[in-house]
Amino acid sequence: MTKAMMNKGGVFIVSGPSGSGKDTLLVKLFEKMPEIKFSISCITRGMREGEKQGEKYNFITKEEFLGMIERDELLEHNRYVGNYYGTPKAPVMQAVENGCDMVIEVDVNGAEKIREKMPEAVSIFIMPPSFDELERRLSGRGTESAEIVAERMNNSLREIERASEYDYIVINDDIDTAVDDIMSIILSQRLKLDRIRYIIDEVLEKC
Amino acid sequence: MTKAMMNKGGVFIVSGPSGSGKDTLLVKLFEKMPEIKFSISCITRGMREGEKQGEKYNFITKEEFLGMIERDELLEHNRYVGNYYGTPKAPVMQAVENGCDMVIEVDVNGAEKIREKMPEAVSIFIMPPSFDELERRLSGRGTESAEIVAERMNNSLREIERASEYDYIVINDDIDTAVDDIMSIILSQRLKLDRIRYIIDEVLEKC
Repeated sequence: MTKAMMNKGGVFIVSGPSGSGKDTLLVKLFEKMPEIKFSISCITRGMREGEKQGEKYNFITKEEFLGMIERDELLEHNRYVGNYYGTPKAPVMQAVENGCDMVIEVDVNGAEKIREKMPEAVSIFIMPPSFDELERRLSGRGTESAEIVAERMNNSLREIERASEYDYIVINDDIDTAVDDIMSIILSQRLKLDRIRYIIDEVLEKC
Repeated sequence: MTKAMMNKGGVFIVSGPSGSGKDTLLVKLFEKMPEIKFSISCITRGMREGEKQGEKYNFITKEEFLGMIERDELLEHNRYVGNYYGTPKAPVMQAVENGCDMVIEVDVNGAEKIREKMPEAVSIFIMPPSFDELERRLSGRGTESAEIVAERMNNSLREIERASEYDYIVINDDIDTAVDDIMSIILSQRLKLDRIRYIIDEVLEKC
């Protein structure tokens, strides 16, 4: 048997509020660990400029989405401003079976639902380094009104209040350090007894 | 408050049988992470050539050792061929309080006892990559008798049978990879919610 056949992959839930720098961080992570799979969400909203089918999202119809809910094909789903968003179950299960690590980027509510269905999933919350830095990042180029910035801050802080539901906290101050941090979490999980137990049997097999 | 004041250190139990290459691996680990503390065992046997007081061991008298047992100053201890070996509790507790990571090198029996007293300790078992490689390493330069090699193999295999008591398994095939593996375990532990929770309060503090 090959290692891949015996060794299951890990599921990593990654959340972080607006201003945490999560998106840039994940791009860098996939550059450094191209073997990691990324969960592609299904969504029912229209495609925006620059988006491609199957890249970050699979754009499907509302009927298709409702069918997936009915057939229990989603790990979690959500409705936002009339559109549905969800994480398909099959690609995650397949990655795990094939020994591949899978990253699911999802908000705090989605993370909660996935954790219920997959208690073995490891969850990582990306934090801005401070309140002031979060405010600075969310103010953008200073063109937004104070009201919009305040609303963004409020949304991010509501998410941060739930950071203690996660297994690991990564502070995104210096992006390279934060990428290394996530890598160490993923690498260390590969060394967990349950994922590497086969080597014990392999060495003892000849006794 | 400084980070160090709020953030406790981690305790890492490292075991590995003869032939796992554990000693060389730990030397390299301390070169790469000089901030890690190493638990110095107390022993009652005489000093051997090349050994220094307080380097790997503190050489003490049998009376001193029995006093430490009586005052419950040891995390674990063992008697072997008339001599006592033990892990003093105080330096470990002090390192944890000061936010330092502490590595305790100990055998499978010692690991079991420390785990009972400190269930939060993270344990790592160093494995040889295969039965054949273990045999090759334990045969040394081929000058030992078949009997001695067989006894060494037997001792190592008895330890490997207990590898499943550990949290993490590190396969020491390529030493640099194995050092990186241990580093990723130690680094990822620093990101565990319980050790980094302060940042959530820090960011939310201004709300």
